[in-house]
Amino acid sequence: MDVEEKYFSNISFRERAIFEGAISMAALFHQFIGTPVNEKTAKNLEIAISDSLKLQPAIEKVEVSIDLRKIKQANTEFNYISLSGDMLNAKIHSKINNSLAIIRMEFIEELNYPLIYVEDIVNYDSIDI
Amino acid sequence: MDVEEKYFSNISFRERAIFEGAISMAALFHQFIGTPVNEKTAKNLEIAISDSLKLQPAIEKVEVSIDLRKIKQANTEFNYISLSGDMLNAKIHSKINNSLAIIRMEFIEELNYPLIYVEDIVNYDSIDI
Amino acid sequence: MDVEEKYFSNISFRERAIFEGAISMAALFHQFIGTPVNEKTAKNLEIAISDSLKLQPAIEKVEVSIDLRKIKQANTEFNYISLSGDMLNAKIHSKINNSLAIIRMEFIEELNYPLIYVEDIVNYDSIDI
Amino acid sequence: MDVEEKYFSNISFRERAIFEGAISMAALFHQFIGTPVNEKTAKNLEIAISDSLKLQPAIEKVEVSIDLRKIKQANTEFNYISLSGDMLNAKIHSKINNSLAIIRMEFIEELNYPLIYVEDIVNYDSIDI
Repeated sequence: MDVEEKYFSNISFRERAIFEGAISMAALFHQFIGTPVNEKTAKNLEIAISDSLKLQPAIEKVEVSIDLRKIKQANTEFNYISLSGDMLNAKIHSKINNSLAIIRMEFIEELNYPLIYVEDIVNYDSIDI
Repeated sequence: MDVEEKYFSNISFRERAIFEGAISMAALFHQFIGTPVNEKTAKNLEIAISDSLKLQPAIEKVEVSIDLRKIKQANTEFNYISLSGDMLNAKIHSKINNSLAIIRMEFIEELNYPLIYVEDIVNYDSIDI
Repeated sequence: MDVEEKYFSNISFRERAIFEGAISMAALFHQFIGTPVNEKTAKNLEIAISDSLKLQPAIEKVEVSIDLRKIKQANTEFNYISLSGDMLNAKIHSKINNSLAIIRMEFIEELNYPLIYVEDIVNYDSIDI
Repeated sequence: MDVEEKYFSNISFRERAIFEGAISMAALFHQFIGTPVNEKTAKNLEIAISDSLKLQPAIEKVEVSIDLRKIKQANTEFNYISLSGDMLNAKIHSKINNSLAIIRMEFIEELNYPLIYVEDIVNYDSIDI
């Protein structure tokens, strides 16, 4: 089966780059929120999250940063916390042909919300070389 | 803060409808996979999933169908199973201004994969009334 | 296969009631944390959580209460929040033969932690009738 | 606050070891089921799971093994799968004072179910030295 032809020919490369990046960013949030984490395990958890999401279609790079200050502030009797949206900052690069979408998740204090948005889109055809 | 202006003015309404629908479909998968379910609780779980995802930005309608035959086939000693991707079929309508994206998740046997794709996009400007 | 004999004959009924209740309470936390919820959907989400966990072995009753004041306080630009441990209060009754364990999850402000503990254990043999 | 005294004095050390191990095993299942994984990322995912669960109270050791043959069998068009219960084998050591509980999760084909049970309990007082 030609998956591209059958399921994705109704949207542009740029649209599909946005689409696949959005899927992976929501996967990041809903899969890993609730995971026990502290200052010592945060770095390895970031890497495991990145490695798992890079397996998804079109994903080229995943940068996740867990806010260590928030872990410290939230600190509990038991010396770890559950990963929550306000301590996550992430950037996902998804690329379909010549279109690269950079999807961002960032906790916006003013909105009290981990906003997911398209930070940038690069069309490689438009770059002078 | 004008969220639309600040974070979403770099993409079209059509692109943002695709974007928001993709986020909610991945949320559906990664939030609810693993939930205990059987034939009696499937209907209410579908409704709870739909109600929770309709809260997300731009989401107008969420139809989730859990395959009861797969629940029966998978049936275990303990009379329930964990919700998995091969028993989910879902459709999400996300709408930004005049652009409606219909996002679909469907388990494709040939791919052995719960594929998420854009089933249709409707531009209301192009509809004769 | 006699599952009870093969896998559970090394612990008492009282211990198994505690064991199964603990499993379901952790399932509640790690499965549903992150779910979008607001004041209107909280009640149905509580019911869906309860219905799904009651499917697990030994579980007789599941009472979940999502703190609506915390939802209001946490309220965001987008009129919903992600379910988190500080807004959950739950009680699970698990029963093996004559032993009933009541497992509790409660957010303890002083610990800044959603503590899971055994609230009570009832041995029906010891009750005068 | 003396958490032990206030919340855990109604159960024995042995019971609490069982209790805490059960919580962490269910956390393992419900937190990580659905995570994208393939043969290359499985080892690091096992470590991240282990590191996160070892943060929970009483947990001394967490051994997780993802069945690579099942990953191969399940293999999809996209060269990764979603972690599911039938490919997980795990052992958690939880210890309260002199009581060590070894909690096991194992997919039992005959039951078609990822069974969680108490594999062994060791009371250090009873060991001759």
